[in-house]
Amino acid sequence: MRHDGRKSDELRPLKIKRRFTRSAPGSVLIQAGRTTVLCTADVADEVPPWMKGQGRGWVTAEYGMLPGSTSPRKQRERGVKSDGRTTEIQRLVGRSLRAVVDLDALGERTVAVDCDVLEADGGTRTLSITGAFIALVDVLHAKLSGGSKLPLKDSVAAVSVGLVEGRPLLDLDYREDVAAAVDMNVVMTGGGRYVEVQGTGEEATFTDCELAALLSLARGGIEQLATLQKQALGKRWPFNL
Amino acid sequence: MRHDGRKSDELRPLKIKRRFTRSAPGSVLIQAGRTTVLCTADVADEVPPWMKGQGRGWVTAEYGMLPGSTSPRKQRERGVKSDGRTTEIQRLVGRSLRAVVDLDALGERTVAVDCDVLEADGGTRTLSITGAFIALVDVLHAKLSGGSKLPLKDSVAAVSVGLVEGRPLLDLDYREDVAAAVDMNVVMTGGGRYVEVQGTGEEATFTDCELAALLSLARGGIEQLATLQKQALGKRWPFNL
Amino acid sequence: MRHDGRKSDELRPLKIKRRFTRSAPGSVLIQAGRTTVLCTADVADEVPPWMKGQGRGWVTAEYGMLPGSTSPRKQRERGVKSDGRTTEIQRLVGRSLRAVVDLDALGERTVAVDCDVLEADGGTRTLSITGAFIALVDVLHAKLSGGSKLPLKDSVAAVSVGLVEGRPLLDLDYREDVAAAVDMNVVMTGGGRYVEVQGTGEEATFTDCELAALLSLARGGIEQLATLQKQALGKRWPFNL
Amino acid sequence: MRHDGRKSDELRPLKIKRRFTRSAPGSVLIQAGRTTVLCTADVADEVPPWMKGQGRGWVTAEYGMLPGSTSPRKQRERGVKSDGRTTEIQRLVGRSLRAVVDLDALGERTVAVDCDVLEADGGTRTLSITGAFIALVDVLHAKLSGGSKLPLKDSVAAVSVGLVEGRPLLDLDYREDVAAAVDMNVVMTGGGRYVEVQGTGEEATFTDCELAALLSLARGGIEQLATLQKQALGKRWPFNL
Amino acid sequence: MRHDGRKSDELRPLKIKRRFTRSAPGSVLIQAGRTTVLCTADVADEVPPWMKGQGRGWVTAEYGMLPGSTSPRKQRERGVKSDGRTTEIQRLVGRSLRAVVDLDALGERTVAVDCDVLEADGGTRTLSITGAFIALVDVLHAKLSGGSKLPLKDSVAAVSVGLVEGRPLLDLDYREDVAAAVDMNVVMTGGGRYVEVQGTGEEATFTDCELAALLSLARGGIEQLATLQKQALGKRWPFNL
Amino acid sequence: MRHDGRKSDELRPLKIKRRFTRSAPGSVLIQAGRTTVLCTADVADEVPPWMKGQGRGWVTAEYGMLPGSTSPRKQRERGVKSDGRTTEIQRLVGRSLRAVVDLDALGERTVAVDCDVLEADGGTRTLSITGAFIALVDVLHAKLSGGSKLPLKDSVAAVSVGLVEGRPLLDLDYREDVAAAVDMNVVMTGGGRYVEVQGTGEEATFTDCELAALLSLARGGIEQLATLQKQALGKRWPFNL
Repeated sequence: MRHDGRKSDELRPLKIKRRFTRSAPGSVLIQAGRTTVLCTADVADEVPPWMKGQGRGWVTAEYGMLPGSTSPRKQRERGVKSDGRTTEIQRLVGRSLRAVVDLDALGERTVAVDCDVLEADGGTRTLSITGAFIALVDVLHAKLSGGSKLPLKDSVAAVSVGLVEGRPLLDLDYREDVAAAVDMNVVMTGGGRYVEVQGTGEEATFTDCELAALLSLARGGIEQLATLQKQALGKRWPFNL
Repeated sequence: MRHDGRKSDELRPLKIKRRFTRSAPGSVLIQAGRTTVLCTADVADEVPPWMKGQGRGWVTAEYGMLPGSTSPRKQRERGVKSDGRTTEIQRLVGRSLRAVVDLDALGERTVAVDCDVLEADGGTRTLSITGAFIALVDVLHAKLSGGSKLPLKDSVAAVSVGLVEGRPLLDLDYREDVAAAVDMNVVMTGGGRYVEVQGTGEEATFTDCELAALLSLARGGIEQLATLQKQALGKRWPFNL
Repeated sequence: MRHDGRKSDELRPLKIKRRFTRSAPGSVLIQAGRTTVLCTADVADEVPPWMKGQGRGWVTAEYGMLPGSTSPRKQRERGVKSDGRTTEIQRLVGRSLRAVVDLDALGERTVAVDCDVLEADGGTRTLSITGAFIALVDVLHAKLSGGSKLPLKDSVAAVSVGLVEGRPLLDLDYREDVAAAVDMNVVMTGGGRYVEVQGTGEEATFTDCELAALLSLARGGIEQLATLQKQALGKRWPFNL
Repeated sequence: MRHDGRKSDELRPLKIKRRFTRSAPGSVLIQAGRTTVLCTADVADEVPPWMKGQGRGWVTAEYGMLPGSTSPRKQRERGVKSDGRTTEIQRLVGRSLRAVVDLDALGERTVAVDCDVLEADGGTRTLSITGAFIALVDVLHAKLSGGSKLPLKDSVAAVSVGLVEGRPLLDLDYREDVAAAVDMNVVMTGGGRYVEVQGTGEEATFTDCELAALLSLARGGIEQLATLQKQALGKRWPFNL
Repeated sequence: MRHDGRKSDELRPLKIKRRFTRSAPGSVLIQAGRTTVLCTADVADEVPPWMKGQGRGWVTAEYGMLPGSTSPRKQRERGVKSDGRTTEIQRLVGRSLRAVVDLDALGERTVAVDCDVLEADGGTRTLSITGAFIALVDVLHAKLSGGSKLPLKDSVAAVSVGLVEGRPLLDLDYREDVAAAVDMNVVMTGGGRYVEVQGTGEEATFTDCELAALLSLARGGIEQLATLQKQALGKRWPFNL
Repeated sequence: MRHDGRKSDELRPLKIKRRFTRSAPGSVLIQAGRTTVLCTADVADEVPPWMKGQGRGWVTAEYGMLPGSTSPRKQRERGVKSDGRTTEIQRLVGRSLRAVVDLDALGERTVAVDCDVLEADGGTRTLSITGAFIALVDVLHAKLSGGSKLPLKDSVAAVSVGLVEGRPLLDLDYREDVAAAVDMNVVMTGGGRYVEVQGTGEEATFTDCELAALLSLARGGIEQLATLQKQALGKRWPFNL
């Protein structure tokens, strides 16, 4: 039994609230236990300079933590260089979304997704990906001319897994994350293909066998997350499955 | 009649939700129409270097706008110098709170209040002050030893007023703010004393008589806001009034 | 009697020297007691990007303090972010000048005014505005085609007032400024209309009655300043009054 | 056959030159084909502030590319924020080294390793890890009191693998890296345990089966690299194996 | 005849005004033709960290150009990195002053000299040195305990020389400076010893013979400057000569 | 006898290795004793904005020190402002190369030379110039259309001289440099004309006679360096001499 009563392969309770603010065309408040992320998305009719004239679109993501998202309060990021962790997360979220977007079908547009952590209790980067996909669907609906098929190849979600006291656990909260010898983030499509596997031992190492156990646990978690994403989007779910 | 149906001396509908997140000991989501600010507050047992050893406390405030708070999306502030507007607002919110805190009774502690705008439709700085006061009360309750009187001299709230097409209006939204020839922010205590009066004509000027009309309108608005703050805090309202 | 022998409604002795340097077309050295500001002005035949093609002009202002303007020496500002105070002052000076310039008549030009404090003894921001107006007149004379009327709607000057030990005082020097419970800067046109009213209580509050007394004192000071500006400009004074 | 004649599981020719410069106590020039990295290492008798007094040591790594390492010339990094890629690499190299160092046995010292790319043709981050381990052994020999066992638990090396046109390849050069649909960096100890697995599909995804093939290829490459590290260090190889 | 009527070995008219502002204990306005520099100096009772406990003092210098010192207006330096030219000048002025100060006799104090250019017409760095020496004498008088001998070994002054159309000229103004093939700054003590010789050909070279002619011209100019410095300081001139 | 056995007019042993890396078209590893600099050069078919349309070329130089070039390790320069010393060196190397390049004959191209110090034991700036000239010849050969004469007017090399304990010495190493009362860098063409003379007394001064002795010593050193440059370039030496 885990410290919060969950089983080793059990996700934290997940809540998804779409249209949380009305200022951004995609706006999703997603909560997993005590981790809360506001994912907003907007589209601009231009692409980065290095992509101009190719007829393809682009998806970018940014990530931030509000000062009040941790206690003690986290220093405000303005005027501070993006630290390594933030940069890694932003790149990961962007790559994850681009893996399921048909950039050719998107046309010369850029979707910008912002994942702002209002409350941080572990797993903010994976929850950001899971929420960002929903905001992405909403902004594509709102901004692309109706009737046409959304430029999406698959859905995408992410979850963390880790080895805590030698035991593989799904969806670590902050307390478990700190105790984990090996920490792995897995990003996977609704169709069950890997987008990203990042397994890291900080002052620790792991075997082929442990790697296999962690990957299997992650796959189970992502199947559940994909189902929850589908429920949240209802009729807007852009796939037949 | 104003564009949204309000009378000239009518506030926008105000919602206040305390304990919005659980990561910060004071956490207030405050909404006025389509302007939404998350005010979080925490206390640290230290003061800035220039105040050490005086036995007095300090209150600071920071202010930010999330990228998704406007459409089109606002550039993320990280790595960007605080612009003049942000700096002015942060200083205003801090001064306004300090005007009602008994810094001697607070002791060598710093209360840090963060006002993060989730959705911006005019009046974010005044709404930040009104919400920040509630988060301040909550954090003082949570962190100062119980039983003792809170180190507060009065409550504080703020509202904007302006001259739009020659007519004084209360609590401008974004559309009215853009059209205003004169824009004034008034910060006032629950007891009816001024903390700050900032009246500005951008490419415009105003008379003594117009100044008097604006101040009177602001006073009426702040009386309503003080009542709403009291309702939101319920038994935690730290004054007899 | 004030510490320097002035009456409560008495300005510090004011000296204005035009054409102090020859490198800038407008160059005014203005001194009020021991506060000295060099105001220089130049015009460029372009406007900021967001104003292009509208046929209107713009006026910007910058403000700085030389390291030797205070004792002990003030850290040089180069490489340092503009602090909040500097940003507030720059914005205030710019708005004050724009309030009296006919930006349409100016055409697609930008007037840049620099206010550099050589010696600081209180009231640098208000003295900057009073001096900047004179440099503005000189640069418009020097750079706009002769014969035509200057694109000015009125003159502008500024003064500080404050509550010191409960008593309203005009034109505070540094020692009085530090002792003031309420500090107010008033910017007003030669025609007696407000451009800006900024009243601030740091850890203090004030009543309607005190506000009225301060505004009245400021009005008297600005009338004197307008007369001194007119004398300094002599035949260049661009108004009939 | 690959474009340079290698088989799919063949490493690029590897050259290792120890004591390349005499200014740093560990100084290794490592070349894999046309990728050249200078790895230097030094020890300081202090730890970062957050580690003081714990009796443990720390290992940090930094990474840079000289302007002449690419053609056309790469902009010099001085005065430029570390980009995301650089930050990721620095963190990866640091974690990889810490995974094999016994930080308790190191004592309150910090080993700083610098990996400067003199010539870049793909695989600079993995080659940095492989070279950095050798510089680490040299600096520990030079700076820790003789006779004692080096504070190392295992050796560490790294290699890239990728899916190019559906085919798993070992040790990608730049041309192959650009063409790869999936790119994976694997860091492994001489004892065959994973330190880090980072598999990324940019606008692509991959299956369980492809993941297994890539991991197997990487394992084979790292076994060869570990042997070459051992040869380069000769008698200084700190393990019995 | 030069464009302004001077002979090849003639300095520009020099004016020196001591005590120009009262905020800094040393404050000298120095003008050579249309180049004007305000040199202020102050002393602090501390030395840079790397000098603590040695019983020696230090002298630093900073240099800046006001936006209005050139036409068109120069961009304000705040928030801008010191450019190479500024850094070179600051270092040069500091070294020049240190060459004549007895740092041991100064004790653990730092003299900070600021040279701010109000009007720039060539030769600002050499005029800064000549003026800074006078401000240095004034601040040492004002701040070191009376009666004692000032910690000065000699006086120092500087002048530029250059080859313009093959002809050596003394004290170049901006127009001559731009036309010069070789530009040389010479810093020399009142006693006739070199402190610094910086001769530079930008896209040009020069012979031993030309070097000798330039050095001789500079020596003559500096003898005149030393006399003018002595006159300006009157009884405060700290040497018998 | 000097501490390393050299005579007062003896250079350190010099090694020059051309084509050290293959990523840059000019790539020279130059060593003088224990000072090692990697000079790389590349050409771009564009000029800085302020030179466009003049038909002339430009030569820029940058200089850096790797963290491992000194012991203890030097802080990495990324994210750090160029310090004054670096800026001075970069400007010096650029001017020195431009003095011998026929910028008109170069056409609208920019040659960028990077001097990266791998190992620092004094004289890095002068060794950079001497090595940079060779990289410059190589890049001009590689990138300009064959057959045509290289756009070079002369060769250039540099050396330091100094007064150590009253004695003029050639080519100071770090230990001598620290002990020198006067330090001079001389840049000279192969034809014996000065490009730059920079003599500096830090807390010291020097006479005409000492200046003459230092210049003579430098001239002898540069004649030797020019011969070594010619040998290194072999048939590529672009002059008849």
